[in-house]
Amino acid sequence: MPTQVATHISEAEAPCCVPAHGQDSLLAVEAEALAARFKALSDPNRLRILSIVSASPEAETCVCDLSEPLNLGQPTVSHHLKIMVEAGLLNREKRGVWAYYSLVPGALDSLAATLIPKA
Amino acid sequence: MPTQVATHISEAEAPCCVPAHGQDSLLAVEAEALAARFKALSDPNRLRILSIVSASPEAETCVCDLSEPLNLGQPTVSHHLKIMVEAGLLNREKRGVWAYYSLVPGALDSLAATLIPKA
Repeated sequence: MPTQVATHISEAEAPCCVPAHGQDSLLAVEAEALAARFKALSDPNRLRILSIVSASPEAETCVCDLSEPLNLGQPTVSHHLKIMVEAGLLNREKRGVWAYYSLVPGALDSLAATLIPKA
Repeated sequence: MPTQVATHISEAEAPCCVPAHGQDSLLAVEAEALAARFKALSDPNRLRILSIVSASPEAETCVCDLSEPLNLGQPTVSHHLKIMVEAGLLNREKRGVWAYYSLVPGALDSLAATLIPKA
């Protein structure tokens, strides 16, 4: 049963599982960019951070509110946040002494679209 | 703008971005399992293998047909394939001297569902 994934994705996202434009396979350069984003999701603490930020009523979370639920030191939390900002998954906004993090709109959707088979 | 992800996913998949069942965040044990799957996608050569397998007209690919398009030695290809089989993304079937690989039905969809915001 052949499986094909959605091709209508943003230009920043390469399709994972179908060849684009009749190419034989995902191009190496596209695969590099996509792999970097999945790498940002490959850590359980980073997934928990995304979960907390997403579930926040204000749709953003202060770095100061992440250490306790994750049972991690603030330098470790900041390290994980930096990786997700660099991967384009989280936005960072400094207000006063604290930084606040929110999901980059559409970033997770675009990544998911590279994996979803066509209906 | 709060973003929430789909909750109707298989029991093997933990939701990434919303708390399940009123919990404060993704549980540590769920995050571990999910992160392991994303880790299998965090390598460009593994994404290219998924692309080739998915695009194959027979919906499966012989290990013998992967070295050349990836420009990798067969031990390296086998290493990547083993990681994806262990992550539950690829099936492996030995026939004669060669092993053939196909996508595990629904595995990529389930993983994508953990990232997709609700409509």
